[in-house]
Amino acid sequence: MDSMSFVLFGGTGDLAKRKIYPALYNLFIDQKMPKSFSIIGLGRKEISDKEFQLQVKQSLQTFSRRALESDEKTQAFLESIRYHQLDITKKEGFLDLLNLVKKRELELNIPENRLFYLSVAPELFETIAFNIKDSGLGTTKGWKRLIIEKPFGRDLKSARDLNEKLSKSFNEDEIYRIDHYLGKPMVQNLEALELANPVLQALWNNQFIANVQITASETVGVEERAGYYDNAGAIRDMFQNHMLQLLMMTAMHLPKNVTTDEVRTEKRKVLEALRPMTKDEVTSHVVRGQYAAGEQNGKKLLGYKQEPGIDISSQNDTFVAARLWIDNSFWKGIPFYIRTGKRLKEKSTRIVFEFKNPMQDDLYKKRNELVGPNLLVIEINPSERVSFYLNSKNIDGKIEPVRADYLANAADQPEAYELLVHDAIRGDAKFFAHWKEVELAWQFVQPILEAFEENLTPLHSYKAGLFGPDASSQLLAEDGFKWWLDSDSEESDLSENKKLKRSI
Amino acid sequence: MDSMSFVLFGGTGDLAKRKIYPALYNLFIDQKMPKSFSIIGLGRKEISDKEFQLQVKQSLQTFSRRALESDEKTQAFLESIRYHQLDITKKEGFLDLLNLVKKRELELNIPENRLFYLSVAPELFETIAFNIKDSGLGTTKGWKRLIIEKPFGRDLKSARDLNEKLSKSFNEDEIYRIDHYLGKPMVQNLEALELANPVLQALWNNQFIANVQITASETVGVEERAGYYDNAGAIRDMFQNHMLQLLMMTAMHLPKNVTTDEVRTEKRKVLEALRPMTKDEVTSHVVRGQYAAGEQNGKKLLGYKQEPGIDISSQNDTFVAARLWIDNSFWKGIPFYIRTGKRLKEKSTRIVFEFKNPMQDDLYKKRNELVGPNLLVIEINPSERVSFYLNSKNIDGKIEPVRADYLANAADQPEAYELLVHDAIRGDAKFFAHWKEVELAWQFVQPILEAFEENLTPLHSYKAGLFGPDASSQLLAEDGFKWWLDSDSEESDLSENKKLKRSI
Repeated sequence: MDSMSFVLFGGTGDLAKRKIYPALYNLFIDQKMPKSFSIIGLGRKEISDKEFQLQVKQSLQTFSRRALESDEKTQAFLESIRYHQLDITKKEGFLDLLNLVKKRELELNIPENRLFYLSVAPELFETIAFNIKDSGLGTTKGWKRLIIEKPFGRDLKSARDLNEKLSKSFNEDEIYRIDHYLGKPMVQNLEALELANPVLQALWNNQFIANVQITASETVGVEERAGYYDNAGAIRDMFQNHMLQLLMMTAMHLPKNVTTDEVRTEKRKVLEALRPMTKDEVTSHVVRGQYAAGEQNGKKLLGYKQEPGIDISSQNDTFVAARLWIDNSFWKGIPFYIRTGKRLKEKSTRIVFEFKNPMQDDLYKKRNELVGPNLLVIEINPSERVSFYLNSKNIDGKIEPVRADYLANAADQPEAYELLVHDAIRGDAKFFAHWKEVELAWQFVQPILEAFEENLTPLHSYKAGLFGPDASSQLLAEDGFKWWLDSDSEESDLSENKKLKRSI
Repeated sequence: MDSMSFVLFGGTGDLAKRKIYPALYNLFIDQKMPKSFSIIGLGRKEISDKEFQLQVKQSLQTFSRRALESDEKTQAFLESIRYHQLDITKKEGFLDLLNLVKKRELELNIPENRLFYLSVAPELFETIAFNIKDSGLGTTKGWKRLIIEKPFGRDLKSARDLNEKLSKSFNEDEIYRIDHYLGKPMVQNLEALELANPVLQALWNNQFIANVQITASETVGVEERAGYYDNAGAIRDMFQNHMLQLLMMTAMHLPKNVTTDEVRTEKRKVLEALRPMTKDEVTSHVVRGQYAAGEQNGKKLLGYKQEPGIDISSQNDTFVAARLWIDNSFWKGIPFYIRTGKRLKEKSTRIVFEFKNPMQDDLYKKRNELVGPNLLVIEINPSERVSFYLNSKNIDGKIEPVRADYLANAADQPEAYELLVHDAIRGDAKFFAHWKEVELAWQFVQPILEAFEENLTPLHSYKAGLFGPDASSQLLAEDGFKWWLDSDSEESDLSENKKLKRSI
């Protein structure tokens, strides 16, 4: 791994404290950082290096996934950090920054490899990128890279504009667009699960699968992000990026030599095969929802419109469910159902493959036995688990559903940001969003945005603390399916077998 | 269920006490016995009914899988039992028995449905069957059935002779040949696992499976059965019956309407498709072993020849491993490996399906990652478990084997004898060995018997407490395979993941 400078815009911000410093620290402890590295945190406040290092230490104490190591190690890490006060609109500030970067490169004997991490408001992306180039910071004898946080645009046009501007300072292969869902270990595992397991590979297609359900449900509401969220909605905050990334990771079929380029090519093919919707078709395939007052565990929950900072007349979506079709030879003819929302009953990110069950009617209905379809369930969060739902004879000789599962040891798992920052430092963009993915995703989502904005698609209200609007269940019921593993339905379907009560 | 008389030859014997009375009792408690039933235990000693009922009660206290119920219930069960002293060589004894059976039928208002259970030495089978017919016991207005214990003959000719003689008194559809492996819940589950699970059904053939391994290993030695065992050997005691039954249950493919006749037809087809061996071919495909002195858990173990009752020059087999081929469209081209033996390291009955792994070499060897083949493991004993061995990314991003499993709740499982006796009372012969199965099994085994007897096949010595002779591993190594899940190999292959250390 090349020695390098890690230049963090938004170095005093929330994300830096919660995720980025802990990621760097844990990589350091795991000996996954380069031999020499310089970390430079940028911010508007005036803080001394010592003071800043203390702040970073505090953030590590609060947010690191493991307790701090010996003083010596922690001190060595902290000493690699410098703070620089920067007004990003002023070129002089960037020249000063360039001097600091160079000074540290000299001190630490680091070649001119520079990683710029933009953990700032999206309005600032262009200015920063421009100034990096303009100041000479981006003119290096080594490599330069840009890590950029979401959101990448707010529709197809703004995303294209942003990309055009960034591309004046960085080439596509220098840009690492973070989608932290791609950093989750079980998402990164999808490729291995399919490729390294002939039994899964054999089943991973429309010959055996009846439908695929991708869920990312949250229990929290809008929290302190009213200003951002009310302008984004679930469609921009989750669907266009995370959900479509999960879709790509689930539906791609990889050739045997898995290179970064191949993964990105195969992901892109999924989006290219996605059947587009016109604005007028959106209502038939997409459900828009907004949470109303409700309760969870006896605690009353506000409706979205009553949340602080949200206008009482807001038409913003806090829930989206959609039926998608991937028209390629692997998936043609079977629906992918995707849903995401806030203030739902469970915090859960999971992929459910429901298998076809051609014998079911003939064989077991006659005998009045409850035979559910086989499921392959990949839980991404909060547990990491791979489960098969099978049918087995119970002690009375009757068929009943049972679950065979593998629970990964979540305690030791690195965090998404650790994996992603490590990849960026190594120069592997496999689990970052390529511009083509982002563009195709916006292209697909654009008619949905318009249908929502023009109110062509009804905004269904749903009670906080449940499973979203009825229309979401209806969407699957139209095809003869249902959402799997929502606690209620699971309890009733699988009540007979204790193994099947969800333990999470 | 028809009310009936249950007439037990060998009513004071070991099997009756350990298995048959407890089975009847547990069926009674579970309300799975007919409304009225009469149990008549037969023996040579002179015992009063009361005394006999007390003996049965003691056997229940010792061997029933659950504690005895209230006195009232237990008493009701015991009162259904009568004892009758019988010299089975004398017709008069059978006439007396007939009178007792009829008397009880009258008292309990039972139609003339009579189940005769032969839990006696095989030399007595013919005489008893003849006398049942000759005495008129077998002439009933209702049904009559015969349950018969193993061994059914000691080679093809003696089995045919026995069957011919039995068939003078009972039709084939009245004869229930017990193979208690067919009574094990997980064996009975094989049919359901395949039929009710499209994902398993899709994989259950030579397109995806590389080989199948059926193991029934015991830790015990010859114990008190020297006289019988030294004349039978593993080949007759286990292979011809239990192992070939497991093979049939594993390899059969059922049509969707699972009737008893269809199951038996499909099982027979498996044996019909079994590639026969000549006497001279046996050595290439069959390994014969006999245990020598060894140790287990620090305890010294005698060699077979040193066991009480065994001649020092005995050439008897205590271990058999074989490679079989089923030449039908489902299994053509993939080997079935079968092994059974005494004084091995583990007590375990299991079926391992090893899947083909066409990508393995290309993909992962290059990256120096340990990718084992996928396995489907069906554990029959001592745990009842269905497991998939998959490959998954570990926290370092490397592929490693993991196990997804379903462990049936063994505590509540009915015993094999309970299920089988219940089936016989109901008149369902699905899980009993049909004569055709027995005959085909002997036909297949006959050249092996001859090769053993004529010493054409070497008798390999193996250390007690390990995994059998090296030749057994060699048999698989010839085809590029190995026995899966022998503790040693598993430990080394799968040591990285705690989930995979066998918990049993």
